[in-house]
This record gives sequence, structure tokens and C-alpha cells, in this order.
Amino acid sequence: MALIVHKYGGTSMGSTERIRNVAKRVAKWARAGHQMVVVPSAMSGETNRLLGLAKELAPAKTNDAYGRELDMLASTGEQASSALLAIALQAEGLQAVSYAGWQVPIKTDSAYTKARIESIDDQRVRADLAAGKVVIITGFQGIDGLGHITTLGRGGSDTSAVAVAAALKAAECLIYTDVDGVYTTDPRIVPEARRLHTVSFEEMLEMASMGSKVLQIRSVEFAGKYKVPLRVLSSFTPWDIDLNEEAKSGTLITFEEDEHMEQAVVSGIAFNRDEAKISILGVPDKPGIAYQILGAVADANVEVDVIIQNIAKDGKTDFSFTVNRNDYAKTIDLLKDKVIPTLGAAEVQGDTKICKVSIVGIGMRSHVGIASKMFRSLSEEGINIQMISTSEIKTSVVIDEKYMELAVRALHKAFDLDQAAA
Amino acid sequence: MALIVHKYGGTSMGSTERIRNVAKRVAKWARAGHQMVVVPSAMSGETNRLLGLAKELAPAKTNDAYGRELDMLASTGEQASSALLAIALQAEGLQAVSYAGWQVPIKTDSAYTKARIESIDDQRVRADLAAGKVVIITGFQGIDGLGHITTLGRGGSDTSAVAVAAALKAAECLIYTDVDGVYTTDPRIVPEARRLHTVSFEEMLEMASMGSKVLQIRSVEFAGKYKVPLRVLSSFTPWDIDLNEEAKSGTLITFEEDEHMEQAVVSGIAFNRDEAKISILGVPDKPGIAYQILGAVADANVEVDVIIQNIAKDGKTDFSFTVNRNDYAKTIDLLKDKVIPTLGAAEVQGDTKICKVSIVGIGMRSHVGIASKMFRSLSEEGINIQMISTSEIKTSVVIDEKYMELAVRALHKAFDLDQAAA
Repeated sequence: MALIVHKYGGTSMGSTERIRNVAKRVAKWARAGHQMVVVPSAMSGETNRLLGLAKELAPAKTNDAYGRELDMLASTGEQASSALLAIALQAEGLQAVSYAGWQVPIKTDSAYTKARIESIDDQRVRADLAAGKVVIITGFQGIDGLGHITTLGRGGSDTSAVAVAAALKAAECLIYTDVDGVYTTDPRIVPEARRLHTVSFEEMLEMASMGSKVLQIRSVEFAGKYKVPLRVLSSFTPWDIDLNEEAKSGTLITFEEDEHMEQAVVSGIAFNRDEAKISILGVPDKPGIAYQILGAVADANVEVDVIIQNIAKDGKTDFSFTVNRNDYAKTIDLLKDKVIPTLGAAEVQGDTKICKVSIVGIGMRSHVGIASKMFRSLSEEGINIQMISTSEIKTSVVIDEKYMELAVRALHKAFDLDQAAA
Repeated sequence: MALIVHKYGGTSMGSTERIRNVAKRVAKWARAGHQMVVVPSAMSGETNRLLGLAKELAPAKTNDAYGRELDMLASTGEQASSALLAIALQAEGLQAVSYAGWQVPIKTDSAYTKARIESIDDQRVRADLAAGKVVIITGFQGIDGLGHITTLGRGGSDTSAVAVAAALKAAECLIYTDVDGVYTTDPRIVPEARRLHTVSFEEMLEMASMGSKVLQIRSVEFAGKYKVPLRVLSSFTPWDIDLNEEAKSGTLITFEEDEHMEQAVVSGIAFNRDEAKISILGVPDKPGIAYQILGAVADANVEVDVIIQNIAKDGKTDFSFTVNRNDYAKTIDLLKDKVIPTLGAAEVQGDTKICKVSIVGIGMRSHVGIASKMFRSLSEEGINIQMISTSEIKTSVVIDEKYMELAVRALHKAFDLDQAAA
């Protein structure tokens, strides 16, 4: 008897048959006495279909210029799937009601196509739950201060679910998806990859930001901020499996340090080949150069990931960073046109054929020698490291893209991730 | 330089190419200095697609039980097409913004799937028009007092357009559709049918209610109530035809009695084969029987069209009426179960193979012998009349369905509708 939030991804909502299965699964939870809130994505393919139509009408610079209307458009996908799920639940004999983001309301800022949730009013939802209804809330969207519909960006339904769970102080937020949990690394690259029963919030954050596409990073941030117990599990188990078994399946993302998890120092290997490297050579070593370079990049709305500034030699230094490959050309142009001339730097170099590989583990905090073990392992495979970046629970290296799989497999083995935890 | 409302049907919005044409046409009007409000339908096929999904999930009694969620679902079609049109207009270089019904807001009652508009707030729209924007408002939908989305029933976008035109006191409401105007009858049945340059509001009302599917009847009622000049015209003319020529094309629905129209006594022949006839025989002739019968039918939400009560004989009378064929079985069951037992009537009879054919004309008010000319013409064709119903500007007969085309052709000829008006 608890308040539970379920989130179903687009694949899980991909056909009326699948929606019916979702309804049966939710009904099982509701009949077990839980108060149920469900956050569905749009039916798979629908968001792409809608945005594809927009692109036919306005090919260029779609996102920036047409943001408000794109959000009006794209938000319909979740509204439709939510209504369909409500109908399926009613057909199962339950009381159910669906709400679009603006009806809850889920208030956001006005950054169309990538808005951030500011607040969620829980009054309407609580009243429905108290009246015995299953409440369905559209993922991915909200309403801004001007009364315009906003969307949260791709994968935003995860964030919606976690935010709703936080607002309602839900006992748990279950993210049903097409994978059955969080793995030590991508099983398509390392067949020995193991599913983790638990993973810490910080580790999950590092993995999500590395492109492990299980969860949208902002949803993990939200979960961390509001301490929402979050579970990633498969929506492809039969809907009628035992509820207690289902409730323990998948991977639980935990927040309690002492709740002792698997003891591994390194929990997983994350990787990402969506980035490109940019270096500015011969930068005069003066205060403020990082701001001069990255301020201009940030103003162009480009997110920077790894940042490296080497020590100066002869009054000159080299400055490198990585950006998303989609922003590479734009960033190079920007640097050449606006930054280099005023900066007095010698040259801009770039490389799109790189990847980033990281070891992630909360245990790294209290263990020394983890990074050097990583470097040794890569060296044994003859892989040259181009950039290194470290945090308390992650060490990342940028290497040539062609070595990615090799590096991931070598590190997975070096840290014994194919062995079950003690 | 006027405030103009354009409404585009689903066929006109049926593809991105057609949406682009709509945008170019609207842009032509806007660039000529008009303040433009556009009400689009969903892209053709979209509403059916969405409701088809709902039907797969909840086959039985869809409309009654699932109304609120069906409206959440179906309303997304117009929201998407409206956003796409805004994007197309922006791509044409115009400022444009789209609003869902709830954003205007267009307030309705809570009769889901067939709501009625109660009020429209014009403030937001006027501010945008004043700022030089084209305003797009979703057809077919509104918001009720509880904050739920409602829809106005099939074809409701016409009503939305007229209601918006009324609220904004628009100079004219242009309904762009896949026919080029209102005809003396359906040209598929009578090739000699002529397009009317003008038609009176009352005639249009009778024709719309007879299933001439050019305009939704409620939109005509609305136009009549608020004296909105309404024009039906083709959306398949090239978008770049001369604006003045376009502004005079199609059929204008007029409200001024003295503004003299085509002089024909009968303006058109309407017909409808969506009805079924129900007769209750041997009803004891007491006060209140009409209410006893039709009250129960109305309570079941069944609309009744023609009603005939014959004079009593031996203390018994026969009572007949027509309902939509979709409601036929339900109505027969209702009468047998609930009405006949308490009424003490002898028998219920029904016939679904009927049609209704009407002559419509505002000139009938001041001309005698029109009805008898109709009856003579049908008699000459050997067509038996089952029921007759008359109003000031319409005479309808219920006949065997198989004679429908024959009757329409005979009447079209008898009233010289193939001849241009004097």
C-alpha cells in the first residue's frame, strides 16, 4: 500500500497491444492496493513522425526559430498515448484519468524544446488518487509562465516521472524500459557484462552522462536532488508475473551510502562516441583565457564536456575541450571568427574521430591506484590516451574512436566486472 | 483591411505540401493588410486513426464511457495541424502563433465528444493580432469548467471557426473546403445541380441538417445567432489567384432578407439516408403520451428528427418518428423494455431502409402550392410517401430508400433548379 509512479517508454507504448499490456500491469499494481501514477512516453516513432512533418515545412534551424510551435506539436504524442492508456485502464475495469502537463500543472521555464521543470502542483493528482483513480500524466512536457506548452527535450519523460514522484513523495519510481536494468557496460560490446542489482545515484549520474541511454541524465539529477528511489526494469516481462518478484527486478538506484551495495570499486564502464575534440594551440598564458574561450562557446549554447588546460611553456599554453559532434563545425567556426583574433592564439585544431571511455565507481573515492590500473590496462592494449579527466567517482580518457570496443572490453576485464560481486 | 477568419478542412491540411499551400494563401491575405485568424482541422485521416486506436483498446460503447479520454486523444489532431501551420507561416516569413482551445480559452460545457461552446475569450487573440501575428486556433475543441479538454463532435471545426469569428466580430468567416460552394443538390446525383452564389441562413440550416455535408449544422446556427457572414469556398484553387476574385467565389450565406438573392422559390433539394423510422402502434390516446415516449428516448441521448402522431381512432393512435440509424437498435430495445409495458401500446415497428428528401427554400414562405407540387412530382414517379413533415421553408418526405436518387432528380427538375436564376 504505497504511492508508486510507473514510467513507460515509447517502445512499451508502441502499439495498442502493448498499451493493453501496460494497462494490465498497472491494474495488477492498483489491485494490490497501491496508489498508481503512470507517466507514458509517446508511442514509439510518433515524436519523430511529428518533428519530421515540421522539418518538411521548415527545413532550416528548426529548433531555435520554431521552438514554441515544435513543442505544441511534439507534446501531442504523449497526450494521445496517455489518453489511450486511460481508455485501456478503464476497459480493464479501473477508474483512470489522464492529464496533459498543463493540466496538472507541471510548470517549467520557457526554454522551448528543452525546458526545465520548476514546480508541480500535486493537488489535483492527490484528489484523484484519494478517489481511487489511476492518474496518468503525460511525460515530456509542461507549461510555462505565459501559458505556452513546453517540452523537456528528448527522453524528458524520465524526468517528468521522477519529478512527479518527487512532488508526490512516491515510495518508488519505476522506469519500465526495453532493457532489464543497468549493466556494468553495454552487453552488445562486452557479452560478459552483468546487470547491477543496485547502483548509487552518483554512479548512475556518471553513467547516464556518458551516454548509457538507460535514463535521461536530468531525471537522475532530479532523483538525486529529491531522493526519489528509482528503479530501472524491463517492460517486456509478462504483465502477470508475481508483483513481489517484479518489484525487486531490474536495477535500483540508491541514495543511502551505508545501505551496502555490491562491493566493487568500479561499478561500470561507460563510453560515448558522440563527442569531438577541439584544441587551441599557442594561447598567451594570461588570466581569463578559459572564460574568453568557453564563455563564447557557452553563449552559442554549446555544451562543453572534458576541459584540459596544459601548463604554460614560454608564456603560451594549449587549451583543449570536447563538445558534442553536432556542435563541432559551429564551434570551430565560432572560434576562428570571434575568439582566435582577439585571443591572439596560434591555431585551432579539431578531431571528430574520438571517443570517451570512463570507469565509474563510488568505491574509487576510498581506493588509490584505480586510475593507474586503468592507464596500465589501456597501455597493454597499445591504446594511446589523448586526454584525461577525473572526478571523485569517475576517470575518463579520450582515445581514438577505433579503439573504443577494445578499451571497453579490456577495462571490463581488468576490473573483474564479469565476476559477480562478493 | 479587415479581421478575417479562415477555416481549412482536413483534406486541405492533408499533407505538408497542402499545409504549405494553406500558409501561402493565408500569407496572401495577411500581406493584403487583413488581420488573419485561421482555424484548421486535423490532417485528414488523423482523427480516424486516433479513434481507431481507442476502439482497439475499448471496443464497446466507446463514446459514452470513455468520453473525456476520447477528447484528450482526438484533440491532439488539431493541435498538431495548428502547430504545423504556424511553422509553415513562420517559414513564409510571417509571425504566427497557434493556440489549443484551452489556451484561448474556448469554454464549453462538459458533454464530452459533443460539447457546446459557451464563451470565447478574445483578449489573447486580439493582442496577437494587434502585434501583427497570424493567430491559429485549433478547431473542434475547447475546455470545460473542470479544466478538461472537450471536443465539439465531428465537423466541429466549422463551429469553432464561426464561434471565433463571432467572438472577434470578424468581417467574414471563410470556410475553405473540398467543394466549391453550396449546390442546389448533390451533383453526384443530379449532374445539372448548380452552385448557388448566395443562400439564406435559414435555407443553409435546413440543408445542413439534411446531411448536405458542406457545413456542420451547429456552425450555421452559430452564424445565424451572431450574424457572422459565412462563405463556403474551395481550397483547391491555386493559392495565388487574385484575392478579390477569391473573396467573391463560393457561396455566401446571408442574413439580410432584403439583400435580394436568387429568386427561386425552392433553392435546393436535400436528402438524408442516415435515418430509420420507428412506429408505435395502438397507443392509448391520453395526454402525455408524446412525452412518455420521447422523454425516454431523449434521456437515452437519442436525437429524434421527424415526429408524426396520427389522429386517434377508437381511443388508440399511432406514433411515428425517425432517429439516426446508429441509434435504431438501442431505441427499439428501449421502447420494448421500458416504454411499451407502461404505455400499454400494442406493438413497435421499425424500418431502417428509408430516406428523407426535402425541398428547401425561403421563398416557400410566400408561395402556396409548393408542397403539393412536390407530392405530385413524386406521385408521377410512382414513389409512395410514408411520412410528411413541414416547416416554413422546408417540406420533407420519408420514402423508401431505393427511390432516393429518383426522387431527388425528379424534384430538382420539377422546381427548375437546373436553370440559372432570373
